Amino acid sequence: MYVDQASPQELQSQLVELERQYAAFQASNLNLDLTRGKPSPAQLDLSNGLDGILGGDYRAPDGTDCRNYGGLDGIADAKALFSQVLGVKPSETLIGGNASLTLMFQNVAFAHLFGVRGPETAWSREGKVKFLCPVPGYDRHFGVCKELGIDMIPVAMDENGPVMDEVEAKLKADPLIKGIWCVPRFSNPSGIVYSDEVVARMAQLAKIAGPNFRIFWDNAYAIHALHDGAPELANLMDAARRQGTEDSVLIFGSTSKVTFAGSGLAFLGTSEENLKYFKQHLGMTTIGPDKVNQLRHVKFFGDYQGLLAHMKKHAELLKPRFDAVLEHLQAGLGDSDLGSWTVPEGGYFVSFDARPGLARDIVRLAGELGVKLTPAGATFPYGDDPQDRNIRLAPSFPSLEDINQTMEVFVVCVKLAAVRQKLGQ
Amino acid sequence: MYVDQASPQELQSQLVELERQYAAFQASNLNLDLTRGKPSPAQLDLSNGLDGILGGDYRAPDGTDCRNYGGLDGIADAKALFSQVLGVKPSETLIGGNASLTLMFQNVAFAHLFGVRGPETAWSREGKVKFLCPVPGYDRHFGVCKELGIDMIPVAMDENGPVMDEVEAKLKADPLIKGIWCVPRFSNPSGIVYSDEVVARMAQLAKIAGPNFRIFWDNAYAIHALHDGAPELANLMDAARRQGTEDSVLIFGSTSKVTFAGSGLAFLGTSEENLKYFKQHLGMTTIGPDKVNQLRHVKFFGDYQGLLAHMKKHAELLKPRFDAVLEHLQAGLGDSDLGSWTVPEGGYFVSFDARPGLARDIVRLAGELGVKLTPAGATFPYGDDPQDRNIRLAPSFPSLEDINQTMEVFVVCVKLAAVRQKLGQ
Repeated sequence: MYVDQASPQELQSQLVELERQYAAFQASNLNLDLTRGKPSPAQLDLSNGLDGILGGDYRAPDGTDCRNYGGLDGIADAKALFSQVLGVKPSETLIGGNASLTLMFQNVAFAHLFGVRGPETAWSREGKVKFLCPVPGYDRHFGVCKELGIDMIPVAMDENGPVMDEVEAKLKADPLIKGIWCVPRFSNPSGIVYSDEVVARMAQLAKIAGPNFRIFWDNAYAIHALHDGAPELANLMDAARRQGTEDSVLIFGSTSKVTFAGSGLAFLGTSEENLKYFKQHLGMTTIGPDKVNQLRHVKFFGDYQGLLAHMKKHAELLKPRFDAVLEHLQAGLGDSDLGSWTVPEGGYFVSFDARPGLARDIVRLAGELGVKLTPAGATFPYGDDPQDRNIRLAPSFPSLEDINQTMEVFVVCVKLAAVRQKLGQ
Repeated sequence: MYVDQASPQELQSQLVELERQYAAFQASNLNLDLTRGKPSPAQLDLSNGLDGILGGDYRAPDGTDCRNYGGLDGIADAKALFSQVLGVKPSETLIGGNASLTLMFQNVAFAHLFGVRGPETAWSREGKVKFLCPVPGYDRHFGVCKELGIDMIPVAMDENGPVMDEVEAKLKADPLIKGIWCVPRFSNPSGIVYSDEVVARMAQLAKIAGPNFRIFWDNAYAIHALHDGAPELANLMDAARRQGTEDSVLIFGSTSKVTFAGSGLAFLGTSEENLKYFKQHLGMTTIGPDKVNQLRHVKFFGDYQGLLAHMKKHAELLKPRFDAVLEHLQAGLGDSDLGSWTVPEGGYFVSFDARPGLARDIVRLAGELGVKLTPAGATFPYGDDPQDRNIRLAPSFPSLEDINQTMEVFVVCVKLAAVRQKLGQ
């Protein structure tokens, strides 16, 4: 269906048919949810061996009694393993609790309030500071900025990542920009992988933006490919080392989508000097992370190869769900002017762009049928999608059957909204 | 030995004898540590059953899949159990991660920066705010204030708790006082239990200090008696309910000294309205706590009686260590004018007051023998013990043998410092 080429009569007859289909869904009392990037129960089952894996031995290989207090940056074996996910040295790694969002919030808050190198470097002293936010992006990143009163400036993305000409120009023009949010591999929600050139230019941003600027490199899907041969991400820390800009690099990761979403480990990779200052403040808020859970994870995976083998099992469960979403989009909207979408090779999302001005309508229409979609606008700072077109689809959690039902509804809602818009209704 | 009544000759001969004893310790190359309130390995062993207790079933009794995301305030069964430790309703309870210090820091930081009821109630808007700090107290409480730039005002304690006349007078005189730090049962370090009258007057402080004032009631040793029949603590929330001051109450607890120090649960008890606002900000920093570990704890204890029975086993391990400390103090310093100490019925510490001006000397003398004591001054805001006399002794972690050795050294150092002071050396 091409609404731009349809006659008013054609549109009118489409409308009748679509409203009939919509009414049929209404009659079936749906209760479906495609909102959050949660692992499915089958994915969680892959890690059920975690509980009990210690067999009563709570000592780390280096002799640390993981049950007791101590060790602000986590156990050595967890650093050795998960530093490989981040692409940094173990000495540049901190292993935290169950939420990388907490590590991100702390890094923003500490830099803002206490400074990256003591109080005189606090961002808040410089005035109303700002972050660059490549869009579409992750709503919880935007939430951190909003909470701390940091202004957000959207930056366009293309298939290579953030448009670096725009990023560099904005940094040159405004010294109050102190950070940029990035999900560099299988980006949330677009699924793209930053190109080598984008990574190389990222490593040079501190030369424009100054020593207190930080790249928040949320590599949440670092090892979350849907198939072999998916694009790799260049190593940001290596690139920064070549430029002498390691201090600008804050890399985050977690096992939230590796083991248990709510009971995994979060990690931070950054320069040793950054870690030193971060830990000074972290130590005011906690005695240290849960080392027992770190030991469980180390024993469960054994080594990096074990971790990667585990991720293949996730891919086997996720791939059919992504395929289902993409098949419905292709079958229902492929030959149309009603929207475009990404075909991700990893991560947790499919990003759909409707015709401008329709995202809210589509989400509302689906919602009224009992089909929950991520709120329109959520992928933009302040919830403001200026073209009102982006919708994030998250197929990991529901069953295949639920995904199929949801996507049938979705396609009808996309069409119905477009026809109504075109008819001026 | 009474140095105030000793002749110069007597002091001189004491000095010779004490220096001989000190030199003998020097020869034995000690390496002892009585600094931190850490559980001993034997105490930790009591909870070794935690790992594996789930037997592959990660569902909470209410059906929650504890492995996945969700539930900012913890699982219902953990609230039901641990609210009884706090003395509040389950609906007034939040179960967090492994550190109550984190919950305390967040409560201070959120109130200071974001407000207790929205931005216009942020403490930071009122000016340079202050906390009352009953002394001697807990250094990590003081660390939170220091980190956030909150001034600290020491308040005297007696055997009933903080001197409430002083507390109330200070609050009347200064509306910028927004909080008070309390360890109400088996106080850190004095071991005293706040009297019923002190608790009742605490519940009325908000009537003097206004709606944004908060009592930080760190009930870390709520169920940590060394023997049956130890003094009970009156219920602060019940008292506050009678006064209509529930919003002024923030009660903290944890299982750090119940199960694993580094891998337990922390809890917060406060009014439902406070919880609502707290969670708004907490949700910007995390998706939620580790619910799997909460489920482990619930299954491990079963119910509150199970929890109390478990604490008796801790008491059996701790009591002989406290007795050893007290026996050495009594035998070595009981018939003297060289110091006084508390005889705690629970908690983790013995508080020793030397003759004024000697705490630093004593800690230094012991340190030079390889015996680490908590730094003098640590129990006061800014590390400043105005009389330089308080030393916190923490006997939980070392073996009985190590405690005996340490206390022999301690007694000699107390005597030596006093004799030298008296002789003007």
